[in-house]
Amino acid sequence: MIMAQKKRIIVIGGSAAGPKAAAKARRLDYDADIVILQKDPDLSMASCGYPYYVGGYFDDRNMLLCTATGVTRDPVFYLNAKGIEARTNTEVTAIDRKNKTVAYTNLLTGEAGTLEYDKLIIATGAVPRIPPIPGTDFEGITTLQSMKDADFLRGVREEQKIKKAVIIGGGLIGIETCEALQLAGIDITVVELLPQLLTFLDWELAKLVENHVRSKGANVITDNGIVEFQGEDGRLTGIKLQNGAELPCELAVVAIGVIPNTRLAREAGLKAGETGGIEVNEYMQTSDPDIYAVGDCVESYNIITGRKVHAPFGDLANLQGRVAGENAASGNNVTFPGTIQTGICKVFDFSAGSTGLSETVAGKLDYDDIITVINASPDKPGFMEGELLVTKMVADRKTGKVLGAQCVGPGDVSRQISQWAMAIKGDFTVEDLVNADLPYAPPFSLAIDHFIATVHIMQNKMKGRMNGISAIEVKKKLDNNKTPFILDTRGPDEYEEMRLGIGETVIPLGALRKRLNELPEDKDKEIICFCKISLRGYESALVLEANGWKNVKVMEGGIMAWPYGREK
Amino acid sequence: MIMAQKKRIIVIGGSAAGPKAAAKARRLDYDADIVILQKDPDLSMASCGYPYYVGGYFDDRNMLLCTATGVTRDPVFYLNAKGIEARTNTEVTAIDRKNKTVAYTNLLTGEAGTLEYDKLIIATGAVPRIPPIPGTDFEGITTLQSMKDADFLRGVREEQKIKKAVIIGGGLIGIETCEALQLAGIDITVVELLPQLLTFLDWELAKLVENHVRSKGANVITDNGIVEFQGEDGRLTGIKLQNGAELPCELAVVAIGVIPNTRLAREAGLKAGETGGIEVNEYMQTSDPDIYAVGDCVESYNIITGRKVHAPFGDLANLQGRVAGENAASGNNVTFPGTIQTGICKVFDFSAGSTGLSETVAGKLDYDDIITVINASPDKPGFMEGELLVTKMVADRKTGKVLGAQCVGPGDVSRQISQWAMAIKGDFTVEDLVNADLPYAPPFSLAIDHFIATVHIMQNKMKGRMNGISAIEVKKKLDNNKTPFILDTRGPDEYEEMRLGIGETVIPLGALRKRLNELPEDKDKEIICFCKISLRGYESALVLEANGWKNVKVMEGGIMAWPYGREK
Repeated sequence: MIMAQKKRIIVIGGSAAGPKAAAKARRLDYDADIVILQKDPDLSMASCGYPYYVGGYFDDRNMLLCTATGVTRDPVFYLNAKGIEARTNTEVTAIDRKNKTVAYTNLLTGEAGTLEYDKLIIATGAVPRIPPIPGTDFEGITTLQSMKDADFLRGVREEQKIKKAVIIGGGLIGIETCEALQLAGIDITVVELLPQLLTFLDWELAKLVENHVRSKGANVITDNGIVEFQGEDGRLTGIKLQNGAELPCELAVVAIGVIPNTRLAREAGLKAGETGGIEVNEYMQTSDPDIYAVGDCVESYNIITGRKVHAPFGDLANLQGRVAGENAASGNNVTFPGTIQTGICKVFDFSAGSTGLSETVAGKLDYDDIITVINASPDKPGFMEGELLVTKMVADRKTGKVLGAQCVGPGDVSRQISQWAMAIKGDFTVEDLVNADLPYAPPFSLAIDHFIATVHIMQNKMKGRMNGISAIEVKKKLDNNKTPFILDTRGPDEYEEMRLGIGETVIPLGALRKRLNELPEDKDKEIICFCKISLRGYESALVLEANGWKNVKVMEGGIMAWPYGREK
Repeated sequence: MIMAQKKRIIVIGGSAAGPKAAAKARRLDYDADIVILQKDPDLSMASCGYPYYVGGYFDDRNMLLCTATGVTRDPVFYLNAKGIEARTNTEVTAIDRKNKTVAYTNLLTGEAGTLEYDKLIIATGAVPRIPPIPGTDFEGITTLQSMKDADFLRGVREEQKIKKAVIIGGGLIGIETCEALQLAGIDITVVELLPQLLTFLDWELAKLVENHVRSKGANVITDNGIVEFQGEDGRLTGIKLQNGAELPCELAVVAIGVIPNTRLAREAGLKAGETGGIEVNEYMQTSDPDIYAVGDCVESYNIITGRKVHAPFGDLANLQGRVAGENAASGNNVTFPGTIQTGICKVFDFSAGSTGLSETVAGKLDYDDIITVINASPDKPGFMEGELLVTKMVADRKTGKVLGAQCVGPGDVSRQISQWAMAIKGDFTVEDLVNADLPYAPPFSLAIDHFIATVHIMQNKMKGRMNGISAIEVKKKLDNNKTPFILDTRGPDEYEEMRLGIGETVIPLGALRKRLNELPEDKDKEIICFCKISLRGYESALVLEANGWKNVKVMEGGIMAWPYGREK
């Protein structure tokens, strides 16, 4: 009797994409030998949860490593529950494609060996980018990329010794770490080389997040990079910035992005793309048909632009793992369509999310006729304690297609971005979305959900019914000593409470029809209307236009979307 | 000089759809005479907010009537801010289509008159259905449909005299009212004629809501209608049910649905449809081209089924108002595509929502090859205090198209239903959705969002990889003394804490491979696997199938979706 030889599937990497691929392969091939080789001591770490562990949202470290019912995902779990052999502390040192083997070393015992594979899945993740400056070896400098890093920063929280920290980089991880350390009682400064935090947002929305971060007591420095870590006796004492300023600190968290970890793949001669990630086709297959790659080490296809991007998101890692696991187990059956780069993060009481293209990204890609709109409104009615949302929508003017959307604020950003992500997936136009049928009840949304209202404003702009102007353009006019007539259409009491102080005249919408004589006599004079969210601003503009003024604009999003300082 | 005659647009009804239509018409035609004739004393009441006012979520009645900045939407507001003449306490008594006039009476002064119109918009809403039984005139019987009703029930809350109340009808308004009055400290019984609450859900999900309502101390009686209101000295003292039972109570809220208020339209000879609503075309235009109709008084087109339905939702009323307002002002430019009947409600710590077709509705419509799946999981990771979601997805087996989805639980149902609503709008299939790119971070969702996981399970079922069985089918087998082998794949500690007690054998997934000898020897024996949410149940089924058992099923949603009583 001849035994059919068992297929062996080896997975390199045991964080998110790797174990998912292994589990899916197991479900499709009960008999295969499935082996995970993991360099770290832990498996299936919920790495997106590190900042919340550091920030004290929960105290039990094991929650980052266990199943929903509290079982730690260790090698015993993998063997018993999944029939998968998971070897931790085991570094793969080389892939021999000719002989279809991997060489590995046990980092604890030093034992080395090789294993044959039929199919190999590379899930080696990404490594933090470290700035090429002096002093990176000082004690007190870390990233927040591994369980070890999380343990270190959680220890910092618990010891309560460190008073001042800097975070190098104002991206997603930087900003989450900022909250975490601020909650740990540490005085925080975020240093960002670019003019803004969170580059998946356009500048004016990122600025709203920055203002919120500042309001929580954290300091933010943009447009300024770090040139040197400074120290004494091997310990960090401060950092020096491009502009010469020095910031004393005992802790620095480096969060300036990640680089796909492709060393093994490159050394094995697998193709890597321009983004630095391993090249894969729609089956998640590398240039070697017996080798798949998934997660933060690969480059992905952007569905909107057709270009390759590096998109290190935990959800994509899992979805790609599922695809590669199935294909490795049973032939190329399923495909991964790519990404629209949907992301979200929480920072203090704000959430910030984005999907598709920002105006900045679309501009770089030579989209030459885009139209944007900014909408500010509560997420729910006032009587249900609605919280603010500010959304920027980006569309293609000719086709009306949604290209992207960003949303920030204390409101339910998650639902908004989910809706936009599905709208982009559906290749919808503005006209398709104006009458979307979404779940409404006062505990959940406005009768016309913020998402639909945003589309309505875009429709009004596209039909030429609303002449919108962004806060940025208004500020530019003011800075250049252009003096449009600026009309704040709120009530005097509201003005007393909060105001821009940019030379505005206050005439409430309700009084406007009777006080038109206070408007400029010159009907060609540029008039800019706004209110708290510019709904009354819009109505006022229609009144003025109907009364002959020819150059009336609405400042989109009103005071709530104004990214600059206010007089009050 | 000849003055161009101003167009007059009259709107009958001043709640949601009417004012929206008037406002939109004004934005497009600055010169038109726009008049709202409103029978009630108030305008633009946030009627969906009544239960929350009664329940004490907020105390300021005016919040139901005011703009976001606190200005009451009264006739003065409409005149000054919108240039719209709104007449309250003004009932329209007849429409004369030939002369294009409406006759009205002022309910306060008795003054009567007529007004000419160029375009008329009917937004007369719906009236509560009242059961045709004795005693409906007793004091203490109300609905929750008007501001007056809300004032009455808020008074009940404040007086704290009433101890026992019944709610007749377990639909959306009934269930919201149940929470409101329970929060007011009143002993509540909900009486529903049908076998379940919330008929937009299928029975098993409605039952989960019912169990939650009971857990809050409210009593629920299903499958039983009211046959009589009982009273003394003109005051309600109790109700009598179909089965003869009598329930003493001092308050009864009737919430057995609404009927489109079409009297005026019918008397004017406008066509009404089979659903009882006024017939309108895609422009929201009635059988008279000069008359539009919007909101709860019209029938709508169901986009999925192509049939007419009565869909009295606040969000649709607003969207329809916007369409009719534009068309009345400037010709038939825009259309309303119809509804997929998306709805959501909050009841205590649960939310319950639905979009598209339930299995029950699809069955009635002769969809002959539908496939459903139930998925239970937390909305977020355990370390972020994820809360349970239970979703039932309904799809067309042949095409894989999503027909509908329902979701209940303490988790973020709003995001889930929003995603499903957009998926249905996009006409997506299961294969389109398995790799959806949704916003993920631990504060907002699982790495593989509950929505995507639901689609994954559906895909596994459609590909024949998972043989699902519903809790209902399992219960039926047990009731018929069929004895499948029932396998609870959780740990013994979990079993000690909570269990179904339906004759199950407990073998944890992690021990299953070693304890296969405890399974039935007969490889054709029916085996039903489950766990808390049936993820381990699914993995166990794969193990058993790989070891030769041929009739292995997974009980979908596990214990969390079990609608019946548990042993523990």
